[in-house]
Amino acid sequence: MDDVTSLLRANAAYYEAFQTRDFESMKQIWAADAISCIHPGWSPLAGRPQVIESYRRILVNSAQEPLTCSDETVIVSGDWARILCIENIGAGKLAVTNLFVRTGEGWRLVHHQAGPVAAEVPQQRRVLN
Amino acid sequence: MDDVTSLLRANAAYYEAFQTRDFESMKQIWAADAISCIHPGWSPLAGRPQVIESYRRILVNSAQEPLTCSDETVIVSGDWARILCIENIGAGKLAVTNLFVRTGEGWRLVHHQAGPVAAEVPQQRRVLN
Repeated sequence: MDDVTSLLRANAAYYEAFQTRDFESMKQIWAADAISCIHPGWSPLAGRPQVIESYRRILVNSAQEPLTCSDETVIVSGDWARILCIENIGAGKLAVTNLFVRTGEGWRLVHHQAGPVAAEVPQQRRVLN
Repeated sequence: MDDVTSLLRANAAYYEAFQTRDFESMKQIWAADAISCIHPGWSPLAGRPQVIESYRRILVNSAQEPLTCSDETVIVSGDWARILCIENIGAGKLAVTNLFVRTGEGWRLVHHQAGPVAAEVPQQRRVLN
């Protein structure tokens, strides 16, 4: 399987684990160490214990809205890769960095940041006003 | 100079270029290719022309508020490194990922994302209510 396909699968697995609240899968998706994360509105978290605990708390939160991923851009540089994408949550959109490293067991997530995309003024509205 | 010191200097150079609106320096801080960026509220940008053009537009914008960087966390993994930090803009705070790659000319920026940190409820307020 080529790198881009493998990376898109690893990225999709992250959102699948998120959607199904599968904490055990989420733990496997992340690399073994030197991981970090910036959740929307949060300060940065660094270190596997801190990052994994944040996901445990998020995945048990029954108020978490359904989330889908779209608009993936994959940038591979040797054993490191970024996927930039959009997370769609209700009417809201978050812009995302997912940073992966190649390991003996495949691509593993080492960093995630998500932050809000400002709502765009619809084209029609701009024309009419 | 050790990696952490070099990286903190490269990160500081980014904020210095931002603060002084030094577009020529900003262009040198970024790697030659495969760069990407997510400005606050923006969708992801990928590719040197797109990223550099976004900085040209931001640096000529006279409405840009002063910005300082604090709370740096440096994570080095071989020839790749992340600095997680906080950008302070007036009373607001942004949480930041700056991703660097080691090149023959030193560490160069390959990806930047900044997104808002939610205001915390002051301790006193929580006690009083």
